[in-house]
Amino acid sequence: MGNNAIVGQSGGPTAVINSTLAGVLEACLARGARNVYGMVHGIEGLLQEHVVNLSDTIGSQMEIELLKRTPASYLGTCRYKLPDFSAGAQVYEKIFQILDRLDIGWFFYIGGNDSMDTIAKLSEYGRMIGSEIRFMGVPKTIDNDLALTDHTPGYGSAAKYIGVVMKEIIRDANAYGNKYVTIVEIMGRNAGWLTAAAALSRGEDCEGVNLICLPELPFHLDRFLAKVEQMQKERNSVVIAVSEGVKLPDGRYVCELSNDAEFVDAFGHRKLTGTARYLSNLVAANLDTLTRSIELSTLQRCAGHLSSRTDITEAYQVGGAAVKAAFEGHTGEMVALQRISNNPYQCTTGLVDVQKVANVEKKIPVEWINSYRTDMTADFLDYARPLIQAELTPIYIQGLTRHITMER
Amino acid sequence: MGNNAIVGQSGGPTAVINSTLAGVLEACLARGARNVYGMVHGIEGLLQEHVVNLSDTIGSQMEIELLKRTPASYLGTCRYKLPDFSAGAQVYEKIFQILDRLDIGWFFYIGGNDSMDTIAKLSEYGRMIGSEIRFMGVPKTIDNDLALTDHTPGYGSAAKYIGVVMKEIIRDANAYGNKYVTIVEIMGRNAGWLTAAAALSRGEDCEGVNLICLPELPFHLDRFLAKVEQMQKERNSVVIAVSEGVKLPDGRYVCELSNDAEFVDAFGHRKLTGTARYLSNLVAANLDTLTRSIELSTLQRCAGHLSSRTDITEAYQVGGAAVKAAFEGHTGEMVALQRISNNPYQCTTGLVDVQKVANVEKKIPVEWINSYRTDMTADFLDYARPLIQAELTPIYIQGLTRHITMER
Repeated sequence: MGNNAIVGQSGGPTAVINSTLAGVLEACLARGARNVYGMVHGIEGLLQEHVVNLSDTIGSQMEIELLKRTPASYLGTCRYKLPDFSAGAQVYEKIFQILDRLDIGWFFYIGGNDSMDTIAKLSEYGRMIGSEIRFMGVPKTIDNDLALTDHTPGYGSAAKYIGVVMKEIIRDANAYGNKYVTIVEIMGRNAGWLTAAAALSRGEDCEGVNLICLPELPFHLDRFLAKVEQMQKERNSVVIAVSEGVKLPDGRYVCELSNDAEFVDAFGHRKLTGTARYLSNLVAANLDTLTRSIELSTLQRCAGHLSSRTDITEAYQVGGAAVKAAFEGHTGEMVALQRISNNPYQCTTGLVDVQKVANVEKKIPVEWINSYRTDMTADFLDYARPLIQAELTPIYIQGLTRHITMER
Repeated sequence: MGNNAIVGQSGGPTAVINSTLAGVLEACLARGARNVYGMVHGIEGLLQEHVVNLSDTIGSQMEIELLKRTPASYLGTCRYKLPDFSAGAQVYEKIFQILDRLDIGWFFYIGGNDSMDTIAKLSEYGRMIGSEIRFMGVPKTIDNDLALTDHTPGYGSAAKYIGVVMKEIIRDANAYGNKYVTIVEIMGRNAGWLTAAAALSRGEDCEGVNLICLPELPFHLDRFLAKVEQMQKERNSVVIAVSEGVKLPDGRYVCELSNDAEFVDAFGHRKLTGTARYLSNLVAANLDTLTRSIELSTLQRCAGHLSSRTDITEAYQVGGAAVKAAFEGHTGEMVALQRISNNPYQCTTGLVDVQKVANVEKKIPVEWINSYRTDMTADFLDYARPLIQAELTPIYIQGLTRHITMER
């Protein structure tokens, strides 16, 4: 049995993924791991033996606090899918050789459903060769699309960001007094959890967004235009939240209708931006109104200055729970968040078979969409509102939020 | 001499324009104004006699605190340019009839250089007809392009927002480890003050942006590509701040090269968006790298959740100073911020002739741009850094920032 632990971060960055890293690091040290290594750029870095000893760079309580407040991935990220055993035996042999050389007993991977596929394959391969290494998945994604967990760390902060900035955009949009349609594009390729969070903007001091367009439902251009025209008979300013992933009934993404060539993201994946811009131009061409489009873009996943304390705390807890499980002998599992009640909000952690999480996307239940298909129901708000509660005060130095990085 | 005061907000919203409104309101009441009216949608609303009595809607200290934290224009805004006296005598007659009917003694207009044109014309016309109404301009603009004032309320908060989110974008961009060019588009049609604020991102914990492109300098597409190529030999992630207003040597805006039809803003003005997207596509087509574009868009002017306390305080102070001057008999002037020293930062207010501010744009001094034309000098940082210091804690209710609106 190895004496050291190793942890990696994978997939898209979030505002709280480093809080999970802090939780893993502190729990491993508390339970007697001799060293806690970090994979630099996930499994891809590990394959090149690119690792750091986290105790070398994060040694003080102050540095732990900064880590909790630093967005994106402290260790760097990757999106690398392990091959099947038959096709890539030498990749697995290499990984286990490296892990043995590092004297690893516990392996943690923080990520979404692609990352859980990595944990599933490594734990399965480990069983086959009789390895004693424990492999645990730790959930992370702003998209909230992981199965078998009530929600995912990262979602609460992104939802809070969306709620706050939608309120600010609505204030801005209302200032002009003329006919004005604002279309805000929100992330979420297939699942509308982030776009749905725009519904949180409605409250005593804000009318909220006027229309929510989710990728779970087919998008009809003609019905959309008719709806906008109808809404503008009642109010000058109309603010619409639209998912980047809305699709026409024929299956094409709406953004494919635009003529924009900017199509590949940092992982080389096809990008879906341009939906709001296309719709904004469509409305301007067909209705008598001014329009604008706003892409929340990268900021919705890396706004560390506006994170949810509930989310930060849960992100830290799932790290610790993964360590506890691994040190108690669990492998091939993912920590899940299990909600006990909405009001008062109570939530605990459990363990689920990582095979059942890998490569599955959880979408919004249709019963949480209103009958007009324009807004979310009270059930969704009851689900989402606890996740955005409370703040973790950023540490401001010289007027800016302070982070911690490996490049010191 | 009238017994009541009236105040209007004009031009683009900011995060702190309502703090100025609070300053005007409280100072007018303290100095004995019987009523303080607000023009709904500025001078355009006044012409339709659309006014509110501010004491009816903002009656408590709690409401004043919420007003300071509410972005955009509480009273609504407009962009209405008064005609020349010769062409529009009936407009002036109508305005002064309305003001007399409202028993106005003091008139305050919060805005940028267009708004100062309004104050210049109204005070001049008032002198011509022997009116006793005092007309005072109160500076406001995120663009920081007003003459004769050290800086403008609104700029400090926008600069702080830009500094904070550039740091977060840089963290996100560094997470991937592959070649990646991120181009961030920042507001500022002719003056680069906001884009320059991206330079604030550099510090102990952040390498900062790698290139800053200001509208004050001609933009050469070939030199830009060569510079990006050169920078990427030294680092994988390159983050660039570019003004929406950069122009080719022949005078065309760079964004005109894109084929985007979305061209009119809420005031019916031509929009300049699309610069970063065009450049991102240009880099992707010419260099071996992934790219992305991010528009900071509306959020940079309405992020009330991330305002500078220095800015909020000064915004409040210029409101009070305008009232003091008007009650002491001044008219046709604008309150200006006058810096006494950088370190310690000390700043007071003065009065300037509004005629000299109207319709003038202040640009960045060329000596504040480095000799390579890629970055700002230490003098700029010494100028800008005091303006982003300290925070005004938002009031969070149910996880979201609380605002105050007229639509209650």
